[in-house]
Amino acid sequence: MSYYRRIRDLREDNDYTQSFVAAYLNMKQPQYCRYEKGFRDIPTDILISLSKLYNTSTDYILGLTDKKEKY
Amino acid sequence: MSYYRRIRDLREDNDYTQSFVAAYLNMKQPQYCRYEKGFRDIPTDILISLSKLYNTSTDYILGLTDKKEKY
Repeated sequence: MSYYRRIRDLREDNDYTQSFVAAYLNMKQPQYCRYEKGFRDIPTDILISLSKLYNTSTDYILGLTDKKEKY
Repeated sequence: MSYYRRIRDLREDNDYTQSFVAAYLNMKQPQYCRYEKGFRDIPTDILISLSKLYNTSTDYILGLTDKKEKY
């Protein structure tokens, strides 16, 4: 697992709080926070949900591309 | 977590054995097999490694796009 800074950057760029994103993901804020800090790997279903929330690709979230736009 | 059929299809399309892909990922075949069968969620680092092996996107592996080609 790795630390994916982009999930924090995407959240801040959208002016979302951790609590807001956590609620969207049906979890508590401390649990979501662990993904942002890289303490826990991001499960694939969460990765998919985040890509939908931010209208970006999972490749962008994982740092495989610098293109924020979807296909 | 979900069952991602595409990691099996990609492997078969490339005529790779499970043992070959497992070795590429530095794991034993039974462990890799659990990802293909959906018994274990695919960790992000494995997802990234597989997208590189098959020269495709993580979005394709996760079923978010039907375009096999990278960006």
